[in-house]
Amino acid sequence: MAEQKKMVEAITPMEEDFAQWYTDIVKKAELMDYSSVRGCMVIEPYGWAIWENIRDYLDARFKELGHENVSMPLFIPESLLNKEKEHVQGFAPEVAWVTTGGSEKLPERLCVRPTSETLFCEHYARVIHSWRDLPKLYNQWCSVVRWEKTTRPFLRSVEFHWQEGHTMHETEEDARAETLRMLDVYADFCEKQLAIPVLRGQKTESEKFAGAVATYTIEAMMHDGKALQSGTSHYFGDGFARAFNVTFQGRDNSLCHPFQTSWGMSTRIIGGIIMTHGDDSGLVLPPAVAPIQVMIVPVAQHKPGVLDKAKEIETRLKQRFRVKTDDSDQSPGWKFAQYEMKGVPLRLEIGPKDIEKNQCVLVRRTDREKVFVPLDNLEDAVAEQLERVRNDMYEKALKNREGKTYEAKSLDEMKEIADSKPGFIRAMWCGDPACEEKLKEVAGVSSRCIPFGHEHEHGACVCCGKPAEKLVYWGKAY
Amino acid sequence: MAEQKKMVEAITPMEEDFAQWYTDIVKKAELMDYSSVRGCMVIEPYGWAIWENIRDYLDARFKELGHENVSMPLFIPESLLNKEKEHVQGFAPEVAWVTTGGSEKLPERLCVRPTSETLFCEHYARVIHSWRDLPKLYNQWCSVVRWEKTTRPFLRSVEFHWQEGHTMHETEEDARAETLRMLDVYADFCEKQLAIPVLRGQKTESEKFAGAVATYTIEAMMHDGKALQSGTSHYFGDGFARAFNVTFQGRDNSLCHPFQTSWGMSTRIIGGIIMTHGDDSGLVLPPAVAPIQVMIVPVAQHKPGVLDKAKEIETRLKQRFRVKTDDSDQSPGWKFAQYEMKGVPLRLEIGPKDIEKNQCVLVRRTDREKVFVPLDNLEDAVAEQLERVRNDMYEKALKNREGKTYEAKSLDEMKEIADSKPGFIRAMWCGDPACEEKLKEVAGVSSRCIPFGHEHEHGACVCCGKPAEKLVYWGKAY
Ligand SMILES: [Zn+2]
Ligand SMILES: [Zn+2]
Repeated sequence: MAEQKKMVEAITPMEEDFAQWYTDIVKKAELMDYSSVRGCMVIEPYGWAIWENIRDYLDARFKELGHENVSMPLFIPESLLNKEKEHVQGFAPEVAWVTTGGSEKLPERLCVRPTSETLFCEHYARVIHSWRDLPKLYNQWCSVVRWEKTTRPFLRSVEFHWQEGHTMHETEEDARAETLRMLDVYADFCEKQLAIPVLRGQKTESEKFAGAVATYTIEAMMHDGKALQSGTSHYFGDGFARAFNVTFQGRDNSLCHPFQTSWGMSTRIIGGIIMTHGDDSGLVLPPAVAPIQVMIVPVAQHKPGVLDKAKEIETRLKQRFRVKTDDSDQSPGWKFAQYEMKGVPLRLEIGPKDIEKNQCVLVRRTDREKVFVPLDNLEDAVAEQLERVRNDMYEKALKNREGKTYEAKSLDEMKEIADSKPGFIRAMWCGDPACEEKLKEVAGVSSRCIPFGHEHEHGACVCCGKPAEKLVYWGKAY
Repeated sequence: MAEQKKMVEAITPMEEDFAQWYTDIVKKAELMDYSSVRGCMVIEPYGWAIWENIRDYLDARFKELGHENVSMPLFIPESLLNKEKEHVQGFAPEVAWVTTGGSEKLPERLCVRPTSETLFCEHYARVIHSWRDLPKLYNQWCSVVRWEKTTRPFLRSVEFHWQEGHTMHETEEDARAETLRMLDVYADFCEKQLAIPVLRGQKTESEKFAGAVATYTIEAMMHDGKALQSGTSHYFGDGFARAFNVTFQGRDNSLCHPFQTSWGMSTRIIGGIIMTHGDDSGLVLPPAVAPIQVMIVPVAQHKPGVLDKAKEIETRLKQRFRVKTDDSDQSPGWKFAQYEMKGVPLRLEIGPKDIEKNQCVLVRRTDREKVFVPLDNLEDAVAEQLERVRNDMYEKALKNREGKTYEAKSLDEMKEIADSKPGFIRAMWCGDPACEEKLKEVAGVSSRCIPFGHEHEHGACVCCGKPAEKLVYWGKAY
C-alpha cells in the first residue's frame, strides 16, 4: 500500500500544473524515456505498442484505399532540397546536416529528411511516364528530423515518427479529392478510434505547409483548452512536379505535369491522446489503440481455483481482445492504481465469491463504475463496455471543447477571452495576413483553421472591422 | 508479343554475368530504384511488400517469445559511441556524422546509428534496477547507416533496414541460451519460410561483431556459390554492461552486471532470396513472403463469363491467400512473362473451356508444370501447390549447396578449389588468426563459420598442418 500511495502521489494534479502533469504521465505510464540526444526520445514498449496499433489501423485503411508502402532514403542532398523554393525556405533552417561520412568530408551536405516531398518527386520523375501510370498512391512509415529548439515528449521532438503519404494524379480534381479523402480518414480515425473530436478545416496562407497550394487540418482541443494540430493533408497543385520535372504523356498525347498531394499523421497524436483523455489517476487510453484493453486482476488469488479461473477467462477473451492477467504478489489495490495509471480501459476482477456466482466484475477506467457480468456472455459484455468507454471518452472530450469555445466580435473581446479563458475563439476574419499577425501579437492566438462550411459567411473582421467572409477558429496551440 | 520479348530479353542470363543478372532483376521486378544519394535506395512497393511480410512473420515470432518493440533515437553522440572500446573501433570508421543542426554547429558530433547497442545500454542503465526487472527483451525495427564504399542494392547499402534485438539477462546461461534461441528463429525462418538452407555456426574471433564475446551466424549459399551471411546473433557477456554501468541488485542483494545479447536480420535477406532462387526468367519468391502468391490470368477474357469467374475465384482465394487478377488488355503471354519476372509462385489460368469443365489450371513458377484442378477444392489445391513450390525451391537450393561444397586438406588444394570452383570449402583450422589471414591472402576465401557439432574434431590445419580441432566452412562472400 505504501508503494501504491507513493506511485499515485508522484503525479502532479492536472489543475495545479498541466505541463508537469503531462511530463509525469509520460514517465509514470512508461511511455518514453529521455535519451542523451537533446529532443530525441526512447519510446518504451508501452508507448510503442500504442503507436503500432495506430499504425496498423491506419495502414489497413490506406491499403483499402489503394495506397502502397515504399521506403525512401533517410538523406536528402542539399541540391535536391533546394529545388522547390518555398519548400527549402520552410525547412532548411530546421534540418540536421550530415557533413562527414566515415573519415571523409562529403562533397555535398546531406540533410536528414525533415519530410520527403523532394525524394518522392525525384523518384516519381523516373517512374511516371504515361497517364496509365497514374494515380501513384505511395506512403511510407518512418521517422523524420526537425531541429526544434524547444522540445516536449511526443508533442515536439527533434526526431519523430510518422507516415507520409505522397500521391500523384492525372487531374487537379483527382488530387483535390484525394487531399480531402485522406483528411477524412484522419478525422474518422481520431473521432471513432481515438475518441477525439476534431474540427476539419483549411489552414490560412500563413499557416500552410511550405510549398503547398492548400493545407487542410484536423484540430483537436486538449483538456487545458489548447489546440493540437492532429493531422494535415496538403494539395500541391503541380508546383513540385514542375520543379522536379515530373511529366507524363496525357490521354491526348500532350506532355503534362501531374497534380500532387501529401498527408501525414505522427507520434504527436499520442500526446493528443494523453492530453485529451488523461486524468489525475493517469492515462486513459481509447480501447481501439490500448496495448491492453482488459486487465484481469484476481482477487484473493491464493484461494483455490481463482488463478485457474482468471487464466481460463484470459484464454477466452484473448480470441477477441488484447488482455492480460496480473497474478503478481502485489496487492489488488496496487494493481488497480497501476493499471489506472497505464490507462487500461477495462479492469476485470474475479474472486472466490464471483466464481461461486459464475460472474465477474468489470470496472470502466472512465468512471470506475462496477458492472457485475455473468461469465456466460462475457465476450459480448466486454465488447459492450469497451464501446461504452469509447463513447464516454468522446462525449467528455466534446463537452470540454464545447464548454471552452467562445465567440469574439472585437479585438478587445478577443484579447480578454484569450487572456482569461483557455479554449477556441470563433471570430470572423477579412483574409488579410496583417490582421492575423496582429491577433497573434495582441491576443497571443494563432488561426487554427477555417472550418469547412464556413468559408463564405458574412460579417466584420474581428481585427480591422472590414467585411469578412471567413469564420476562423483561433487559439493557443501546442 | 513484341513487348514480352523486349522485357525478357532485357535480363542478362545468369550464367553469362551473375552480377548483371542480379542488377537487372532488382530493376525489372520493380524491387528498388536508385536515389541521388550514393548507396541509398528507394525500395519500391513490390520490394517493400516483401520486407513487410518478412517483418510481420519475424515480429510475431519475437512477440511469441516475449520480446517487446521499442524505438531508440536515430542519433548517437560521439561520446556515447566511444564508451565501449572495441565497438567504437569497429564502427567509427564507417558512420555518417551530423555536425550542424539548423544553422548552428553542434557542440558534439552525432553519428547516425550504425547499430544501437550503445543506445540500448544507456536506456537499460536507467530502467534496470533489480533481478526482478530481468530479462529485458527489447527489439526495434528501423534503418541504420554505414558508410560503405562499394554498394549493391539490398546486399550492401549505406542505409539499410533491419531489426535489432537487444536483451539483458540475469545470468550468463540465460543470455547464451537467448543468443542461440534467436539464431534458431532466423535459421527456421530462412529454411521453412524462405526455402533457403543455412549453415548454423560460430564466427571466428576475427570475423565476430565489434564488442561481442561470441558471434553466431547463419550462412546461405547463393546460386553462384558465394556465401551470404543471412542473420547474426551475438553474446556480449557483461562487457557493454560494465562500460555503460548497467547494474542490478541480485537475488543475494549484491550489485551485479547483466549479461547481454543482440541479434539482427536485415533487408540483405531480400538479396539472398533473389540470388538463391532466381532464374533467367526473373525472381522466384518463396510463397511465405511473396506479395502476390497467386496471380489469376483470365484466358480469352472477352468471352462471356470469364472475367466474372476469375473475380469469383479471386474473392474465394482472398480468404486464405494473397491473390490478384490481371484483367488488363495485355496478352496472356505478356502476363505470363510479367509475373514470372516478378516471381509470383503460382499462376492460375481460367478460360471458357476450363469453366465448362468446372476447373482451372495452376502453373508453378518453379517448373511451369500445368496442374488441372477442379474448382470445388480449389483452396486446398492452391495450398498444396504453394507448399510444393516451397519444397522444390528448398530442394533445389540444397542441391546447389551440396554440389558446390568441397573438402580441402592442404593450402594448395584450397587455392585450386577456390580459383576454379565457386562454393564452400570445408577444411580443418588450428585456430590461429595468422592461418585465417593467410587463407584470405592466398586463396581469397574468408572463414564463414565453424558449424555447430564440429568444434571438437581432430585433424590437421589446412594452412599450417598443425593439429586442428575446428572444422571451418570457407568461401567467398557477398
Ligand atoms: Zn481584417
Ligand atoms: Zn594453422
